[in-house]
Amino acid sequence: MSATKQEIATFMAAEFPQSKCIVEAVGDGRATVSHKVGSDELRPGGTVSGPVLMGVADVALYVAILGEIGIVPLAVTTSLTVNFLRKPSADARILGECKLIKVGRLLAVGEVSLYSEGSSDPVAHVVGTYAIPPQREGLIKEGKKLDV
Amino acid sequence: MSATKQEIATFMAAEFPQSKCIVEAVGDGRATVSHKVGSDELRPGGTVSGPVLMGVADVALYVAILGEIGIVPLAVTTSLTVNFLRKPSADARILGECKLIKVGRLLAVGEVSLYSEGSSDPVAHVVGTYAIPPQREGLIKEGKKLDV
Amino acid sequence: MSATKQEIATFMAAEFPQSKCIVEAVGDGRATVSHKVGSDELRPGGTVSGPVLMGVADVALYVAILGEIGIVPLAVTTSLTVNFLRKPSADARILGECKLIKVGRLLAVGEVSLYSEGSSDPVAHVVGTYAIPPQREGLIKEGKKLDV
Amino acid sequence: MSATKQEIATFMAAEFPQSKCIVEAVGDGRATVSHKVGSDELRPGGTVSGPVLMGVADVALYVAILGEIGIVPLAVTTSLTVNFLRKPSADARILGECKLIKVGRLLAVGEVSLYSEGSSDPVAHVVGTYAIPPQREGLIKEGKKLDV
Repeated sequence: MSATKQEIATFMAAEFPQSKCIVEAVGDGRATVSHKVGSDELRPGGTVSGPVLMGVADVALYVAILGEIGIVPLAVTTSLTVNFLRKPSADARILGECKLIKVGRLLAVGEVSLYSEGSSDPVAHVVGTYAIPPQREGLIKEGKKLDV
Repeated sequence: MSATKQEIATFMAAEFPQSKCIVEAVGDGRATVSHKVGSDELRPGGTVSGPVLMGVADVALYVAILGEIGIVPLAVTTSLTVNFLRKPSADARILGECKLIKVGRLLAVGEVSLYSEGSSDPVAHVVGTYAIPPQREGLIKEGKKLDV
Repeated sequence: MSATKQEIATFMAAEFPQSKCIVEAVGDGRATVSHKVGSDELRPGGTVSGPVLMGVADVALYVAILGEIGIVPLAVTTSLTVNFLRKPSADARILGECKLIKVGRLLAVGEVSLYSEGSSDPVAHVVGTYAIPPQREGLIKEGKKLDV
Repeated sequence: MSATKQEIATFMAAEFPQSKCIVEAVGDGRATVSHKVGSDELRPGGTVSGPVLMGVADVALYVAILGEIGIVPLAVTTSLTVNFLRKPSADARILGECKLIKVGRLLAVGEVSLYSEGSSDPVAHVVGTYAIPPQREGLIKEGKKLDV
């Protein structure tokens, strides 16, 4: 049921063409994505905006889940808890490293550490949950929008 | 120590010129902000992206805090917990309604309900925390960057 | 599908005989529960322990959900986010007031404000999520343990 | 400024005599604590109650912080986010393994994985924040109660 890095990158490019995230690695319940930092991502003071960080974490979690359960277009984020830890660099890409904590039948939970590339101290930490459409289990036949 | 809607709107426009959030109301430990929805905010499928929702919540919380403690440029978000509840409308502004739960010496905590304008069912709920620079209390003399 | 205060109190007494929580009110997507404070609940310094507060919030959320969807023994807490706000009184009961934010097919989300009885300033704020067994929707026939 | 396992165990026994947590290991920004499981910790159905899990996580985080900054009696939990993942065993101790993510001047953030002893799949995951009294930095002279 799992998906490869290439399958996920192709899926993400088709489904989320606006996303600037690049899939760097996926497998073994983990994923790494990167996001370039330019003027769109910066706030006055030269720091990467919080929503950019949260978006990178969300994508890292999604990619890690797809790596485990295969291409599931209807999985949706149900919660994210973000702790902002340090000021990100204005001059480095943001890296999001996700480790899945649980992949259940209905919910997947993972944690993501976000870094400014080149630093080993995380700029933010995220725990997030995705709801997985139950048709994966054959409980629902049609691929209708999941309303969790 | 509090700030008016106009003072906050002027401050936000100067400090966060890229933000599309409009301050609609502030006072009594509450704030309402709005964010228009256009192609930049939409994901395929016609839904407002999660990072946009989180950004609106962050601004609503910040505005509510400024309304209580006055213009404090160095207050920083330390955590946000977002629960995504319903698919936002592609055709309506996002409204963020914040109610502060606590404004302490060092931390302020508030909750934000996010709506597609015209609907009474929230699309997301956020609880967030800001760290308030201690110089407000006279503990630190210079206005150096807060490293919480 | 909803349940009355008396039905819920009877169910809670049978299923959770160790719980000291009393159901004070339930209905309209809300619930209030109380918990007495004695030596078991206190920490040195005369403050109510954090786990007691979290337990009261969990029960308040569960009671509010039962009030909406009826007696569902297999609903399980999937997440709780607690912000501790003020030191609780050693001499007052803890009140937990829950307001549901969403009751979906698979997940219910609510927030709980916790008070020392007699005070209007919350001692803690909780947002929590329950997973609701899908057999409520007829998707699963047997009442087997939910593994979300 | 750090404290040893023995110093922390002595401090915990004096300050929190009711706690059943045992300090197993501490150092390098990490801590492991254990908690026996008996009738007080069990819910009907033979599962460890959620508040017990949250209490173990809170202690693990506190011990890890003390291991870094030394014995600081006035540090207080400001937030905990718990994801419940699997049903704990009724017959095994609960282990809480904390890894600190950040130890700042005012806030410390860590994550805790909780296990039933003998299993490598966590039963719950917690991210928590402590506020550290500023007198550690010499900003406040007396050891008065921190009101964050």
